[in-house]
This record gives sequence, structure tokens and C-alpha cells, in this order.
Amino acid sequence: MLNPNIETFLCCESSFEDALTVLYGAPFDSTTSYRPGARFGSSAIRRESYGLESYSPYQRRDLSDCAVFDSGDMELPMGSSQRALEQIGERCRAILDSGKVPFLLGGEHLVTLGAVREIVKKFPAVHILHFDAHADLREEYLGVSLSHACVLRRCWELVGDGRIHQFGIRSGDRSEWEFSEAGHVSTQPFTLEGLARTLEQLGDTPVYCTVDLDVLDPSIFPGTGTPEPEGVSFCELRQAVALVCSAANVVGCDVCELSPHYDPSGISTAAACKLVREMLLALHP
Amino acid sequence: MLNPNIETFLCCESSFEDALTVLYGAPFDSTTSYRPGARFGSSAIRRESYGLESYSPYQRRDLSDCAVFDSGDMELPMGSSQRALEQIGERCRAILDSGKVPFLLGGEHLVTLGAVREIVKKFPAVHILHFDAHADLREEYLGVSLSHACVLRRCWELVGDGRIHQFGIRSGDRSEWEFSEAGHVSTQPFTLEGLARTLEQLGDTPVYCTVDLDVLDPSIFPGTGTPEPEGVSFCELRQAVALVCSAANVVGCDVCELSPHYDPSGISTAAACKLVREMLLALHP
Amino acid sequence: MLNPNIETFLCCESSFEDALTVLYGAPFDSTTSYRPGARFGSSAIRRESYGLESYSPYQRRDLSDCAVFDSGDMELPMGSSQRALEQIGERCRAILDSGKVPFLLGGEHLVTLGAVREIVKKFPAVHILHFDAHADLREEYLGVSLSHACVLRRCWELVGDGRIHQFGIRSGDRSEWEFSEAGHVSTQPFTLEGLARTLEQLGDTPVYCTVDLDVLDPSIFPGTGTPEPEGVSFCELRQAVALVCSAANVVGCDVCELSPHYDPSGISTAAACKLVREMLLALHP
Amino acid sequence: MLNPNIETFLCCESSFEDALTVLYGAPFDSTTSYRPGARFGSSAIRRESYGLESYSPYQRRDLSDCAVFDSGDMELPMGSSQRALEQIGERCRAILDSGKVPFLLGGEHLVTLGAVREIVKKFPAVHILHFDAHADLREEYLGVSLSHACVLRRCWELVGDGRIHQFGIRSGDRSEWEFSEAGHVSTQPFTLEGLARTLEQLGDTPVYCTVDLDVLDPSIFPGTGTPEPEGVSFCELRQAVALVCSAANVVGCDVCELSPHYDPSGISTAAACKLVREMLLALHP
Amino acid sequence: MLNPNIETFLCCESSFEDALTVLYGAPFDSTTSYRPGARFGSSAIRRESYGLESYSPYQRRDLSDCAVFDSGDMELPMGSSQRALEQIGERCRAILDSGKVPFLLGGEHLVTLGAVREIVKKFPAVHILHFDAHADLREEYLGVSLSHACVLRRCWELVGDGRIHQFGIRSGDRSEWEFSEAGHVSTQPFTLEGLARTLEQLGDTPVYCTVDLDVLDPSIFPGTGTPEPEGVSFCELRQAVALVCSAANVVGCDVCELSPHYDPSGISTAAACKLVREMLLALHP
Amino acid sequence: MLNPNIETFLCCESSFEDALTVLYGAPFDSTTSYRPGARFGSSAIRRESYGLESYSPYQRRDLSDCAVFDSGDMELPMGSSQRALEQIGERCRAILDSGKVPFLLGGEHLVTLGAVREIVKKFPAVHILHFDAHADLREEYLGVSLSHACVLRRCWELVGDGRIHQFGIRSGDRSEWEFSEAGHVSTQPFTLEGLARTLEQLGDTPVYCTVDLDVLDPSIFPGTGTPEPEGVSFCELRQAVALVCSAANVVGCDVCELSPHYDPSGISTAAACKLVREMLLALHP
Repeated sequence: MLNPNIETFLCCESSFEDALTVLYGAPFDSTTSYRPGARFGSSAIRRESYGLESYSPYQRRDLSDCAVFDSGDMELPMGSSQRALEQIGERCRAILDSGKVPFLLGGEHLVTLGAVREIVKKFPAVHILHFDAHADLREEYLGVSLSHACVLRRCWELVGDGRIHQFGIRSGDRSEWEFSEAGHVSTQPFTLEGLARTLEQLGDTPVYCTVDLDVLDPSIFPGTGTPEPEGVSFCELRQAVALVCSAANVVGCDVCELSPHYDPSGISTAAACKLVREMLLALHP
Repeated sequence: MLNPNIETFLCCESSFEDALTVLYGAPFDSTTSYRPGARFGSSAIRRESYGLESYSPYQRRDLSDCAVFDSGDMELPMGSSQRALEQIGERCRAILDSGKVPFLLGGEHLVTLGAVREIVKKFPAVHILHFDAHADLREEYLGVSLSHACVLRRCWELVGDGRIHQFGIRSGDRSEWEFSEAGHVSTQPFTLEGLARTLEQLGDTPVYCTVDLDVLDPSIFPGTGTPEPEGVSFCELRQAVALVCSAANVVGCDVCELSPHYDPSGISTAAACKLVREMLLALHP
Repeated sequence: MLNPNIETFLCCESSFEDALTVLYGAPFDSTTSYRPGARFGSSAIRRESYGLESYSPYQRRDLSDCAVFDSGDMELPMGSSQRALEQIGERCRAILDSGKVPFLLGGEHLVTLGAVREIVKKFPAVHILHFDAHADLREEYLGVSLSHACVLRRCWELVGDGRIHQFGIRSGDRSEWEFSEAGHVSTQPFTLEGLARTLEQLGDTPVYCTVDLDVLDPSIFPGTGTPEPEGVSFCELRQAVALVCSAANVVGCDVCELSPHYDPSGISTAAACKLVREMLLALHP
Repeated sequence: MLNPNIETFLCCESSFEDALTVLYGAPFDSTTSYRPGARFGSSAIRRESYGLESYSPYQRRDLSDCAVFDSGDMELPMGSSQRALEQIGERCRAILDSGKVPFLLGGEHLVTLGAVREIVKKFPAVHILHFDAHADLREEYLGVSLSHACVLRRCWELVGDGRIHQFGIRSGDRSEWEFSEAGHVSTQPFTLEGLARTLEQLGDTPVYCTVDLDVLDPSIFPGTGTPEPEGVSFCELRQAVALVCSAANVVGCDVCELSPHYDPSGISTAAACKLVREMLLALHP
Repeated sequence: MLNPNIETFLCCESSFEDALTVLYGAPFDSTTSYRPGARFGSSAIRRESYGLESYSPYQRRDLSDCAVFDSGDMELPMGSSQRALEQIGERCRAILDSGKVPFLLGGEHLVTLGAVREIVKKFPAVHILHFDAHADLREEYLGVSLSHACVLRRCWELVGDGRIHQFGIRSGDRSEWEFSEAGHVSTQPFTLEGLARTLEQLGDTPVYCTVDLDVLDPSIFPGTGTPEPEGVSFCELRQAVALVCSAANVVGCDVCELSPHYDPSGISTAAACKLVREMLLALHP
Repeated sequence: MLNPNIETFLCCESSFEDALTVLYGAPFDSTTSYRPGARFGSSAIRRESYGLESYSPYQRRDLSDCAVFDSGDMELPMGSSQRALEQIGERCRAILDSGKVPFLLGGEHLVTLGAVREIVKKFPAVHILHFDAHADLREEYLGVSLSHACVLRRCWELVGDGRIHQFGIRSGDRSEWEFSEAGHVSTQPFTLEGLARTLEQLGDTPVYCTVDLDVLDPSIFPGTGTPEPEGVSFCELRQAVALVCSAANVVGCDVCELSPHYDPSGISTAAACKLVREMLLALHP
């Protein structure tokens, strides 16, 4: 008999029951203030992943040997961040309740908040590793508190001081830098050594890892809402996320802010796909 | 001395005091459900208007002879439709209070609601002429009531039965067609004859005219969020809006849903600019 | 429990068993001689169908009331037309064997041959209705006989004289026009009257309907490999295919040659989606 | 032995000696005031002509039966209109001196002046048939008299009153319309009837035919510097230029203002190629 | 009362009187020989600057604390380099006469000549620091001496031997390299050390700094007329221009050759905006 | 008399007889499995080479001093790899028979096989230097053995163990890595030192050098079918190929997999042109 049309990220064809990690997509970008389109990120990653090999020469392993279930994209209501975050939370909770690792594909960065709210309930001691070009620590943006520009500030309200570790930040208004310098969060330049030290300190602490892909240099990742020159190389970020996913106790993660309409050559989507592959491989022992 | 950089729609260099009509831009598209980018519409119209002559061979008049003030774009908060509509309302009210005609450049179609709320306060008897491919009459969309897909339904709540006249509609879900067929609004095929009849019936009644540019055929207007084949020709729409603006008692109007990122050749913006020129000329006796 | 990620054409969520019509996609364009990319057509149609309403105001019916199963895209080997056609044939046969109507989404036009080979086996009396800008009647093209430019010639070898009815042809080399004028196939200008006459003559005869979307005018359908000015309007083609699908005994059909990479504004994909919706609605009594 | 790489417009492989018509390209757009890129027009027409058949079903003739020589593009100095026009004139004169018909591929519309200067020397009684959206009759533009916006005014200075016949004009500043209404040139709406009348009056008079492709509607011809809605259909223009080239005593002609960078789907170039084919066929008895 | 629509580079809202630096835009590219479009550079920089923060984490200062006036773009006549350079000179002189620093946004590189002519009049001892991929030292280009390819040669005629310091040059014809090797100008590989040495030698000498953005690597700056691989990294150039603007006696500067139409992802404009921000910050003590 | 339109790669205007090296283009991409368009590579390289100087500051030599003949593109049949390879082989053989070096411009990477078959006949001891992101060592791909993904495997069948030297490979399925590790081919990371060592070992052995341009990092070379992050820098590859062409006994070479449709900014084509220039210069003593 013929089968219905199932589309997954490259090789992620495990059953839900067998899966260790579960992908879920949040096509939402209502609060993007500059260039919209991150809503198309998760489906582009899924679709274009077939340009990639399932085998990683870096980790010398094949994604077809890992048990990943792809639960697809949610249908989120543009124009209501509140409802969208609730729906993301519900899907995240369902995955957590089954003892699996939720892996969120954005969407704009605000979607992280939907996941972190649930993560914090289950893992109150969680720390957040945050890779980004922008601090995202504003109290509000044009009078709106549920905004991509405030998402780590909202997370900080949930986890408190000293629990957010930022890498790669190279943009923010003065208040955000002051917030960090006041010790509420740790904002480091991007180095693999600094990351390794942080991971060592964290030991077995539960970790949520959020990757705003604009941490990458715009030359290799043009397809994002707010490209910021002088970013991290692909090689550095690939090593960093693989390190996090293999060495830390990752209880959830996300990859956000691919905006494929600003990526006419497709290299940003290719980079995102490769990062997701490397993260999935590293999450599976 | 050198002057600051003032940018206006083609020739609209009147002072506010002298102006009969006032342009204001609403760069907002948070509720767009399919393809975002209407936020860039108003600035594209202003910027690209310089590819157009100020003289109209159709009306044999020159825009430089009309008194139009361009108040520029508002800074609207993505992610909060409520606040955005309030700000649009404030600007509209300021224009109305000075006895001038507010001419809104969207943005997505929801921005119309911000203007109509103020129009209805000042002109309780107002009728709405609505050019669009989509009925926009949904009660809600994915649980959200402040949505582009519901904007005429929200307007209907303000003006009541028999006061909305739709032209060019060729898409809607079943419930929207039933809502129209139940007599709440008038939905006609697009014909200049039908429009003329409606205008005759309206006489001196105050009229708000809202143009969702996707009423045009996608061949001449590809640059919009939800292109719908089998639309109106440019010539027909140009004649229609010129007729409305010259023959009806227009107390406010808007032009919405240009999304320039889906218009790589620029023809949609060119069409929008020409329509705005023709409307402005027709509004000035 | 969470579900796997099933992606179908708009609303086509019937089970295979219940379905009357079955969609299948052939992402193949190896023989395209001018501009490739039709391989991306079927997935673009599926993905972008969500910008469309399921309700048709033309037929006053809703696609959610029709039983369509979407079996997704095949994985076809670029570089081997022979194998690709075999795989298309297998899928088509499986659908025919269940007594359902196979509806193929191309892909370049050569894919039609894979389906027609099976159709002819089951319905030896079948006639072919062919909408296209190009005659596709060459004996060979640069020495290759399995080519998009020869596909109707290959079909003619299967069905014989007087069984192929072409509409909209406006390009071909001299030999193709002579082949038609010699009476092997019927090549008419595109008119709804001519089509109606042909349908009347066919009565209950089994019909395969193949639509090369470049029959449309390039203004409304730029996204194709070989755009040919002076084509059919969308309204005309929409009425034509709806007429065929409702009035003829259609035993199989296809829609080919959308090449979304040449469609930066997305209007071609939107047009293709709307045509597929109208055809599906008309196929279901 | 191997041959060097000769690239010509579709099938135009005659020797210079045998040719009746000679193509020459003027990749120049220095005075374009709005959107540049017409410099790429001639090479795009040559390159993309291979997407077209050499056989015309309209004229039932094949371009391979006509003797056309393609002399390629000149290397023109951007920044010096004077020198560029001189070089165009030289090439044109060389063609005229051999008794052949020079067929110029622009480039922006100013290039026409280079050809007309030579045409007038050889054919002092020449009339000019001008298809365009814009009147191009300004005395000067921003202080520059050698400008695309002034080209027909410069030609008028050469040929005098009553010798320029414009079709399709729908844009110009007030002074241009007044210039025409004062009787210096004839500006008609585009109709095949009006054109036929004009041709009848001209009889055997030498005619130069200049086609600014933006006379076409932007839906079918988006790829131009200044798209102007409400243009001529492809079918109308195709019939018009074929009529001119077959019925009038055409001693030179040009096709200008294709700007392929604003034509991401390629339909404008396809339209230009087809028009050139039809003109060439009609020029050859 | 409502205000007219004033658009400035990010935060540059000083009055002319209070300003230390004055921006002025030269949308001109008539002599561009390869790919035009630099005319759109200055307006793109202004418009897209709002995607950037006004705060610089590198300099730990905020642009809102600097007094910059944005005098907007001039209306320059395409097709007449002579006139365009005169107009640029006039604007530059007006700024210099008020004792402020003129900061020119191009346009193609020829516009620099308009500014340098005035600079040399006021500061006869001026040296020129030149960042570029191309030497721009030709005597003429296709017979034209006012050409982007000759602009530094024209400047050399004004300032004489030993006063032009080039960094980053990696393309030129043989004669240009010989001109440099003959000692007329200094052409160094790009290094921050070499730049520092040059600045030390210059001490308080007046300096004009001209940045052709194609000195950057095409990976981070694709949006330019003549991309040349193997360029400078953004970080290097950012440090270099900040060093120049803070350590040298800069009496005028420019940033040229952004061509946004070749920058579909927007990263080039983002890079240009960030460089301008850093230069403005460094210019203000 | 006027000349026909001859188009060559920058300055390659030698006669065939005098030439040392002969360019030939293979516009073929029928087996490309992911994103097609390499068929447009060779003509884009030829056309866009005029944005480049003929003088190389790296080698301090001018291409106009080298004797290169450009024999243009072949007309290859899409859909038949067999025939296409034969035609490539014929052209290669004609060049070899004249004692010249054949320099192939692809096209997809499969075209290399057409050349290598002839090279091996004339130079049975030939070694292959292979720069690529992908190993291309599959036994077959979706049942097809003549595929870009298998091309080095097919070459290995011709030359045998230890004769293929791969640099820059960073993607492949598990079987390809195993094939290499089994010693059939040598797969090294990309370093100039490793390359120099290999060249030293090869001494005067005849060498065929094949460059799949996707060996470059996607940031500088986005325009290719399967971009793979973490590639080689332009500077590294430029040095590598110049080293090979000057130090090894190169009897043939190719540059493949530029797909200009994925290169909207043109930087990939610019990079390809510059590499070809450097290779040609290095090939000429």
C-alpha cells in the first residue's frame, strides 16, 4: 500500500517511543522588529537537510544510527505571542514528560521562552548556554516585553542571577551591557577555551542550550533578520555546540533565527542543517 | 545653510497647515499569516515614487499643484497589535482634528482598523468601500481576533450591517461567504458599473476607502503576502479609485499590503505609487 | 502521543483506502534543455498550498469535503530517465490497481510518459488532452528520444493517430507543426468553445489530461523553464481544466513544469496550487 | 580544427557580405536616471535567444532562412555619452554604407540618437516610428541634454516637425505633452488601426523604428528601468512591429531598455528575444 | 502638530549648527564600467542603519552622544560627471566653510574627486589615506578621464607625489602598478601595523580618508560593482578606520561603492552601516 | 569589414595554432542530484571575466602575454550522460592531438570523466589531483553509476590505486571514507604543505588537475549545487592551483560546479574567473 507523505529532518525516522531526542518546529516571528521571515526557518532546515550527508567526518558517526523523532511544525498564531508561547510550551512539556530531549527549531528567538518555561519547571537548577550576536536582555522593546529583543531577560526572570552564560555577543544597547556587567548574566567573548571552562564548572548541572544562528559571521550566515558583522566562524560554532551537546547534561536545546528569504544562495540553511546534524549526533551517546 | 534630509512621497511638500490631505505610514505586519513584509510597504512607496512623473495624463493634472503633507512612518511595536492600532489611531485623530483627510499607507491590512475606529467616532454614518481579493471577514484566525484576516469583520462590528461594500473578493472560507450572503456586508464582483451604482446610492455620505492591493492581478502586483490569481487589471483599479476619490465624500482612505520583498522587479511598488498619485490627484478638487 | 510530520497538499488528508484521487510527485528534470528546476515543482506546490483557501468560490465547494490522498514525492535518480520513468510507472500502476485516479505533480514534462505508459495498459482507448505552449512532438532532441521536447511524440507512439488533442501550442520547430498538420495529432488554438466541442465528441471515452503550466502567459506564470509570451490567461485555464475534470471521464492527469527558482515572487506557485485545487474539486462529484 | 567561440543571436549566422540585416549591440546606460542595467540588455537578448524556437508560427517562417549577421556588442565608455554616441554612429554608418539594414540592440534609449544621426544623413526624408511608455521629449533633464529622457527631442531637432510618430506613451511631464500638442510630434494612443493608418500615409517613405520595450505592460515586461503600469500587451506589440517591419520601408531600427537585472524570472528577456525574432523575420521578404 | 518626514542615518539628529560632522550623500554611478548600482548606496545605508544599535561595544560609546547632521542625498545628473562633481564640491565646500567635517556617502568612487578638490583648496597639505581593492590610478579608461578607474590618479594630480597612501590594493593593470612603483603613490599591503606607522609619520597633517568598500572580502561585502576575492576582513577594516578617525587629523572622509542590488541578503549594507557608525564615533572626541 | 561576435574568456584571443592551452566548456548538469544549474557555469565564467584585470599582482604577469585559445561551449544533450561524455571526450582528444593542454570549464563534476578517459589513453601514467568538498567516490547513486557523486570512483577504475590525491574533502557517506581508508585513493586535509609534498613525490609524472569549486568555503563561493560549510579560503586555493599549474607536469585540467543561479551577488563567478586566470598564467612559462 502507498504511504502518506512523511517529511522529516535528514534520517530522523525513529518512532516517538524509541526516540531519545524529539525535534519540534516553531514557525513564528511576530515580534521580529527588523526583517521578518524566521517563521520559514524550521521548514527550510527540514527540507534542505537532504543536501547533506548523514555521516559526519568530524564525529565519524552517522545520523541514521541515532534515534530522533521529528514531530514537525506547530501551527502558531501570528499576532499573539502569548498563545504561541503556550503552544510551544505544551509540545515541549509532552516531550519532557516522556523523558526525551526536546530540540526546538525556530522561528525567531522569542520561541525559546516557551521551551524554557517548561524546562525550568522540570529542572529548576537549569543553566542556560546562549550563543548569539545580540544580548537580548532588554527590559522591553517599544513597550513590548514579549519580544525577541528581551527573551533572555525573560529567561533570567525565571532562572535568576548567574545562570545564563552568553557567548559571541557583539551588539546591544548600553543598558544591556550594564545589566550584564552588574553580574546578572555572564557575557563572554566567544572562545572554545572559555566555553570549556564554563562546561567544566557546570559538571552535571542540567543545561539548556539556545543558539541564535546570527552568532555566526554574516559571510557564512547571511540569512537572518539582523546580520551583525564580525561573528564566529562555522568551524568554531560547530565545535562549540558539539562540545556542549556531548559534554554537558543537555536537557533541551534550540536553534533559532534562520530567515531563508534573506539567503538566496542557500548557504545559511546549509549551515543550519549541518549544525543541527552535529548537535543531534553529539546528543546521542 | 544646509537642510535636514526630508523624504516625502513624490512632490508632497506642502506644510501641514496648508495641506488638504495628510499621508501617514504604518509599517506593521505582525499578524500576517503567510508571507510577511508589508511592514516595508510604506517606505518603499515613498522611496520609489521618484520613478514616476508627477503629471497624470489620465487626469491631466500635476501632483505638484495639490497640497499634500507627508508625516512619515510611525514606529510601531511588532508583537503588539493593540498598541500598534492605538498609535495609528492617535495619528489619524490628529489629522482628523485638523480637518484634513488622513491617507494611510500600510502595512498589513489590520492597520485599517486603527484608522476606522477614529473615523467612526467623527463620522458615525460612514460607509466603507473595500477593494480586496480576500473577504477578511473571519470571526477569528487561529484564535486571534486582531488579525488581517478579520479586519473587515472588526470594522463591521463598528459600523454595522449594510455599510461595507466589497469589490473584487475572490477568496474566503465558507463562513465568510455565508456572512456576506446573510446580508451583513455587500460583496460584489468588481465592475466599474457596480461601483458607480454604489457611489450614486451613497451620494454625500462620508466614505472610508480601503484598498488591499492584492485585489490586483498577481501578474501586475506580485509583491504581496497572499497573491490570488484572477484579479483586477491595473487600469480597472486605477479608474475605480479615481472615481471614488473624486465622486464620493472621502473622509479617509488607505492603501495596504504591498510587500516589496516579493517584488524583485519593482513593478508592484511602481503600481502602488501610481495608484497613490491618482488617488491624491482625485482627492484634490 | 506526538505524531510524525505529515505534509500534504492543502487538506488532502484522506486515508489511501478512502481516497478517490491520489497525488504523487515526480521531482525530475534531467532532460530539461534550457533552465532546470522543475524538480522542485511538486514540493513547492505542496508547501505553498497553505496560502490558499480550501474553499472555491467558483465551484462553491470545499476541498476538505473531497477524499484525496497525498502519497508524496518519489526519490528519482537524476541522470537516468529510463529508471525515473519506471519508478513513476510503478507508483501510477499501484494507484490504478486500487481503482483510484492518479494525479501526478511534475517535474518536467517527460514524467508524463511514465504515467501514460500505465494508463494505456489499463485504458487502451484513452485520449490525451494536452495543454501546453510547446508541441513536444519532436522525434528526438540532440540525439535523445526520452526528452521533454519529445514527450507527446512518445505518447503518440503509444496511442496512435487522432488521440492527442493539443490546446494553446504557440511554439515548435517546423517539423512539429508539419507532424500535426499531417493529422497525427489535433492542434487547436486555445478556446473554451473548441475544448467543449472536443469534450462532447469524447463523451465517456477515458481521458488523460496533461497540463504543462507554461501554457499560461508568462506574466502570471513566470516560474517555468521555457517561458513563451502570448499565453493563456489564468481564468481561461482554470475554467478549461475544471471543465475537463468535471465533464470528461478522467482516468489520470498531471500538472508539470513549475520551476519555482524562476518564480521569486511566488505567483507561479500560487497559480499552480489554485489550479490543482480546482482540478481536485472538479474530479470529485 | 577547432573554432573560436562565436556567439550570435539565434540562427543569425550569415556572413556579413550575404546579410540583409546586421545586428549591433550598444551596452550603454550612463544617463539612466532611475534604475540602471540596460547595459546588460543586448548580451542577454543574444544569450537567452536559445530558449526560443527559430520557427515562427505567426509568420510561418524560420529565422534560419533569413540572412542576418550579428556584429556583436561595442565596447562603449561609461561616463561619456558623446563618445558612446560617436561609436554607435560609426558602426551604424559602416552597416549603412554596405547597403544593409542596421538593427541596434540597446542599451538605454539614448543610444537611438547615435543611429538616427547617421540614418538622417543617408535618408534625409526619414520618419521615426516610436513605441514607448514615455515621451522622451524633454529639452533637458537635470541640466543634461544627452539623456534618455530627451532622446526623441534630440531626434526631433534632426528631423523636424511632423516626422515623429509616437505610440503607447502614457507618461511624461506637462511640458512634454504640451510639446506634442503643439504639433511638433504625433502622439497617439496605441492601436493597431492607428498604426495601420500611419503606415498607409507613409507609403514608401524611409522609416526608422525605435522600440523602447517599456511600452509593454510591466506584467509581461518587468525588466526595465522605469516600469509604467497600463502598457501594451505582448500580442499587440508583436503584431505592431511585424506590421511595421513588413509593410514599411524600414531603413534602420532598434530595440532598447531591457534591464535584465530587474527580470529575475527571465520573462522580459524572453519577450525581447521573441520580438527581435519577429522583427527580423518581417524584415526579410 | 505633525512633523514632516525626516530620515537620517541612525541617531544623527543634531542641528547643523551644533554638528561636528556632516553627512552628505552622492547617489551617482554614471562611470561605473562593470555593474552599476552604487547610486543606491547612500540611501540604503541611511535606511538600513536602523537594524544596528547606536551603542558600540568596541568603543564603548553611543552614537546618540555625538553631534552629527545628515544633510541627505544630492540630486545629481546621471550622464554628466562634470556637473555631478561640481554639485558634490559645492555641498562639501558649504560644510567646510562652517568648520565641520564633511563625510560623504557614495555612490561610485569618482565622487571622491568632487570632495577632494575642495579639501585641497582649504587644506593644501592634505594627505589621502585610501582603502581599496583597486588602485584606481589609470590615466584614462576607454578614453574617459573622469572615471571611477582613474579617481586616485586625478587626486594625485591635485596633491602630488608621496601624498597618497593606499592599503589593500589587489587589482590593477600593469601601468597602475608601475605608477605606484615609480614612487608617485605609496601602495602597501593591508596591515594594521603598516597603517599605524603611516599615521605616526603623518602626525597632525590634515588627512582625507577614502574607503572603497570593495577593499573588504567579497564574502562579507558582496554588494559592490567589482568584487575582488582575497580582501580584508571586517574586523581589520573596522579597526583600521576607527584608528584613522581617532588618531589622525581627519578633515574629510568618504565611504563608497556599496551597490545594494548585488546584496540580496543585506549583509553588505549592514557592514557599511557598522563601519560608518564606528567612523562617526571615532571622529567625535 | 565588420567582424562576427567572438566571445572568449578574458584576453584569450590566441589562434588555435599558436595556443599552448585550449579552453572548452561543458554546459551539462543532468545528474546533479540536489540543486541544478552548473550548466550555466562555463558561459558565466567567460562572460563575467571582463570584471577582472588581465594582470595578476600575485604572479606579476599579464594574461594577454599567454597564448590561450577559447573554443567555446559544446552543445551537450541533457538527459544522456553517455553521449555528453563522448562529445567532451572528442573535443578533449582533438586538443590533445594537437599537443596542447585541454582546460575544461564545467558543468557538473561528471564532465571530468569525459576528459580523463582521453587523458588516460594518451598519458597512462597520469595521476589525478582532486580539490573538492565531496569525495565523489560512490559506487553508484540511486542506481546510477554515471553520476557526479561517483565521478572519482569512475576515474579510479581507469587509473587504479594510489593515483588519485584528494584535498579538502569534508563530506561523504561512510562507504566513501572507507574506500579511501582502504588505500585506494589518498584523501588529505587541505594544506599547502601536504600539497607541496605530493607534488614533490610526483616530480615529472603527468598530472590531471580537477577542481570542484565547492572545495571553497560557501561564504566566498555560495554559487554551487551543494554548498558545504567549513571550506578552504580563496587565498589557499589560489596558491594551491597556481602551485600545481606551475610546478607539476599538468597535461589537462578542469574547473567545475559553478552554478551561477545560486550566486545572486556574483561573487562566486568572480572567484571562479580569478582562479582560472591564475591557473592559465601558471600554466604558461
